[in-house]
Parts: sequence; C-alpha cells; structure tokens
Amino acid sequence: MKAGNIFSEIPDSPIDEIFEILLKNDHFRLERIVSSGQATPPGEWCDQDMNEWVILLSGSAGLLFEGEEEVTLMHPGEYVHIPAHKRHRIEWTDPERKTVWLALHYE
Amino acid sequence: MKAGNIFSEIPDSPIDEIFEILLKNDHFRLERIVSSGQATPPGEWCDQDMNEWVILLSGSAGLLFEGEEEVTLMHPGEYVHIPAHKRHRIEWTDPERKTVWLALHYE
Repeated sequence: MKAGNIFSEIPDSPIDEIFEILLKNDHFRLERIVSSGQATPPGEWCDQDMNEWVILLSGSAGLLFEGEEEVTLMHPGEYVHIPAHKRHRIEWTDPERKTVWLALHYE
Repeated sequence: MKAGNIFSEIPDSPIDEIFEILLKNDHFRLERIVSSGQATPPGEWCDQDMNEWVILLSGSAGLLFEGEEEVTLMHPGEYVHIPAHKRHRIEWTDPERKTVWLALHYE
C-alpha cells in the first residue's frame, strides 16, 4: 500500500511554499501544500482554472475572497471550497510553524 | 464559500460509524468518517468497488490488508491508498476518543 504521513518529510527552512502531488488522475489532483509564512503578493489574486476543496491540517492562515471584507481565519481541521475562478488571496500564513494544507483540485 | 471544520459537529455517543459526504461528483466522493471504537466484524473483509485514499486526522486505528500479517497502525496525519477490491479490515479504532478520517473514493 502506498502510505505516508502528511506531517512528515517537511524540509526545515523552505523559502518557497512546497507543493507535492499525493494522487492524480484525469479528474483531480490531491496535493500537500506546506507554507512557512508566505502570502500572496500585495495586490495580486489567485485565480485558478480548477475547483479546489482545501483543508488546513496544521498551522494557521488568513484567506481573503474577492468581494468580502473580512479575512477568513483558518485553523486546523477547517476546510473551505473555492470554486474555479473565484479570486482569493492568502493574506498570511503562520510565521512560527509550518502550515500544512491538503488540497483537492478538480474539474 | 462552503466551509466547515472536520472536527466539529460530531454527535456524542454514536453506536455506528458516521459517514458524511463533503463533496461529490461523477468521478469521486470525498467523505468524513467518524469511528468510535468500531471494527470490521470478525471474519469479514471490506471489498470496495472504488479506489480509496484515506487519511486519519484524529484518534487511531489498526488496518489489516489481506495477505499481510502485520496490522498497519494509523495515527494522525497518516494516510494510505487502498486500491479497489483490495480486501482489508479495520481491526480496531480508538475506544477512548473519536477517530476522524478523510476519505477520497474515486474511480
């Protein structure tokens, strides 16, 4: 059986976010994302071609969706659904510990 | 945005495992499973038509795959891939706390 631990094998001091595909087929891509304090650059939005269901598993983050005034705080266990082309920003991720996300991108 | 917390809204003393669909389309089904000490009945195997990628997020469990002698222990963060029709058993789930799984069933 292909097995692992989502919290293991995380490099110590990455400058960039780490994206790792756990599972993929023609219809979806399941991905581990590890953030270390990164954020979407000021003035920019994420605009994705695929739908995304994403759960935060450790650390914390703040998400902003276009048209909303309040940042959505995310703590371990919290998930959110982001439809394709719903513009959003990662306002911040935890500067003190790794933020681990599990994201399901699908058509 | 459709949002929630995978650890919230868990009934207190369920007799049965709880299965809840978080997301579904023609190609996959994303499901929360909450176990409270349940196990696969003695002598039975789970044999599923779909592939399953499953991660344990709280609690603990022991999985046995047909043909293997050792039970695979699962702790938070650990995931395993179970191909369709790979016979397996849930030998035990944590009797003292809720075991929360996130399962992606796909074709």
